[in-house]
Amino acid sequence: MALITLLTDFGLRDEYVGVMKGVIAGINPDAGIIDICHGIEPRNVVHGAFVLAAAFRYFPTGTVHVAVVDPGVGGARRILALSCDGHLFVVPDNGLIERVATTGKISEVVSVEASRYCLENVSSTFHGRDIFAPVAAHLATGLRLAELGPSVDLRSMVGGILPETCMPNTDTVEGEVVAVDRFGNLLTNITLDAIERLTGNTAEHPIVVELGGKPIGSIAASYGDVAREAPLAVVGSRGLLEVSVNCGDARRTLDAAVGDRVRIRLSRVPASQR
Amino acid sequence: MALITLLTDFGLRDEYVGVMKGVIAGINPDAGIIDICHGIEPRNVVHGAFVLAAAFRYFPTGTVHVAVVDPGVGGARRILALSCDGHLFVVPDNGLIERVATTGKISEVVSVEASRYCLENVSSTFHGRDIFAPVAAHLATGLRLAELGPSVDLRSMVGGILPETCMPNTDTVEGEVVAVDRFGNLLTNITLDAIERLTGNTAEHPIVVELGGKPIGSIAASYGDVAREAPLAVVGSRGLLEVSVNCGDARRTLDAAVGDRVRIRLSRVPASQR
Amino acid sequence: MALITLLTDFGLRDEYVGVMKGVIAGINPDAGIIDICHGIEPRNVVHGAFVLAAAFRYFPTGTVHVAVVDPGVGGARRILALSCDGHLFVVPDNGLIERVATTGKISEVVSVEASRYCLENVSSTFHGRDIFAPVAAHLATGLRLAELGPSVDLRSMVGGILPETCMPNTDTVEGEVVAVDRFGNLLTNITLDAIERLTGNTAEHPIVVELGGKPIGSIAASYGDVAREAPLAVVGSRGLLEVSVNCGDARRTLDAAVGDRVRIRLSRVPASQR
Repeated sequence: MALITLLTDFGLRDEYVGVMKGVIAGINPDAGIIDICHGIEPRNVVHGAFVLAAAFRYFPTGTVHVAVVDPGVGGARRILALSCDGHLFVVPDNGLIERVATTGKISEVVSVEASRYCLENVSSTFHGRDIFAPVAAHLATGLRLAELGPSVDLRSMVGGILPETCMPNTDTVEGEVVAVDRFGNLLTNITLDAIERLTGNTAEHPIVVELGGKPIGSIAASYGDVAREAPLAVVGSRGLLEVSVNCGDARRTLDAAVGDRVRIRLSRVPASQR
Repeated sequence: MALITLLTDFGLRDEYVGVMKGVIAGINPDAGIIDICHGIEPRNVVHGAFVLAAAFRYFPTGTVHVAVVDPGVGGARRILALSCDGHLFVVPDNGLIERVATTGKISEVVSVEASRYCLENVSSTFHGRDIFAPVAAHLATGLRLAELGPSVDLRSMVGGILPETCMPNTDTVEGEVVAVDRFGNLLTNITLDAIERLTGNTAEHPIVVELGGKPIGSIAASYGDVAREAPLAVVGSRGLLEVSVNCGDARRTLDAAVGDRVRIRLSRVPASQR
Repeated sequence: MALITLLTDFGLRDEYVGVMKGVIAGINPDAGIIDICHGIEPRNVVHGAFVLAAAFRYFPTGTVHVAVVDPGVGGARRILALSCDGHLFVVPDNGLIERVATTGKISEVVSVEASRYCLENVSSTFHGRDIFAPVAAHLATGLRLAELGPSVDLRSMVGGILPETCMPNTDTVEGEVVAVDRFGNLLTNITLDAIERLTGNTAEHPIVVELGGKPIGSIAASYGDVAREAPLAVVGSRGLLEVSVNCGDARRTLDAAVGDRVRIRLSRVPASQR
């Protein structure tokens, strides 16, 4: 049984997601359908890009991932179907796949143009139903990417939408808050790799994490390492630095928001002199 | 594999929807279950009626659609099972099926009374679990409608709950906002048919859409036809007129609400004199 | 086909629930997965305990129920797998199973310690993905509980977290509001059993339900027994006393909250003298 996942900014209040599943079931009744989530902030492609990259590897290879955060629906933007590390994706060409692409190897990209794999009447406002869902349903039957349309040069894909981290000096990594989850945890774009490059062989030096210029502390191993209601930094389950409050809501407690600057600083004061 | 869809005002915060699925799985483990959505405004039968009609045709014929927006639960209202254009429905007799019935042909209606297809203990507050779900599960095994209870005369069904459009003169169609989606798009009850009847063979005359007496503009082909943050009218994916803001939230920007009057007016000034 | 249910406080905004399903599908593609719900108030184990107990019996025996409301994730708390009345459960050892245990007979409990049934890299912040989901997927293939880890003495399980009802005198039962549903209905911890013990063979005496000291009225059979917008008490679909407003929102109308005291009082004035 082939699997199809859905990730959108449609929410679950309206019938949009249900209708996409109806279209899939009509074309490929054997496909399993799993929602990654539909709570991406409306039109926030960056948020969608981080969530898609955090989720897709937990599904079996061969899964078809449909991601629709698509403010340009009905306009000239392309719809892409592509393969990355054994997973298939159907996405608008607006950067939504960008973070997936930084963590894996894209091996084939096509522009979805073959109308025979879409619904007969394609609206200008709901391509999730009219194009993305039927194309995914066909891919899950084993349709080859090349059947969907012409090959696309990777360099022509929209990119550069993700906020980047930087190192203003060799002791500091700077990034930002890119999403806030249901619990108020602040997800940043600072990777475990970047942290390890910073600390390198100097594990004897303390690390200080700062949010919006204010110190949060070192990097904890788990929430319970600090007192209840106290803030902490932790490498979260996505392999990215997060700022949290133990048994609390970091967004509220720290008055934080997406875009807030986050800095990791290596203190050169040796541990022995602290 | 038979499909069952669920559409309710139960939300997803509580266990109500999950329990309905458990009941279905216990009776008919082979049935596929798809949520249309559970975000209907509590007890808003009109909202439910529009969403049900917009969604059901995107599922395969033979699907059993369970719709529960049922403020009269536990009272004297009937529960109906019926067939419409090859789809089956289980609904309270409160007008929830009314818009489906205006878009298709209802061929058989019964009143659900056979307790052997319900749970053993029927509560007075949760017929979704105790009646709707088990009845749908049995229908999805192939049970005939007539097994559920006596035939119902269509004219005895509750109707007339939907707000109607009107034509105060031959140049004008008036309707209203019937729902607002997650993005703040304003869904109206003005159909593509009504718009085409108005414009007829006078395509050279401009159309003006008004919301609450204020002009929105003509009918656009897609969101991108207007500037970012600008309002527009568009025939949405349900075949109904919608008022939106490109890359924005029309409810907030236009300070709109369900019930607001919407008017389409044909300007008799010929295009050549504009 | 084995069934797995999921009950968490993760919400549906983020990818957490979707990722758990991906992990399950990777291990046991034949398992059906049903969400009980993910709207438990963050870290509110009492709320989760009531919802789990209200829901699980509506699923077929043999179902594996995964419940994750787990503020102690990454700390020293155990993860338990257990059997109760033919259902299997995987839960943190924090009282989340307590109400299930008061309504059924737990026959076997183990501490989940066998890392070969978990993901290879176990994070400190997302055991739902790394332990609960894969363990449930394996149980749904038929894995015996004993394979997961050592047996646990029931008396060593965390308990005593649920608010208890009391009888300050033989005519009164006191409890409290333990949850509020989407409609604003106030769920209490007063069981139908407790009500029946109170009323006993004195059905001729009236019952008065009070919320926060203010009278609500007697116990109604269904919402429609009182006028629109009027408050009522009703034994809800979970077998627990609820306070509602007919066609309205009791939390708002009665300005109520979780923790509010609820009292059922038997009036000794015989019905004949009322």
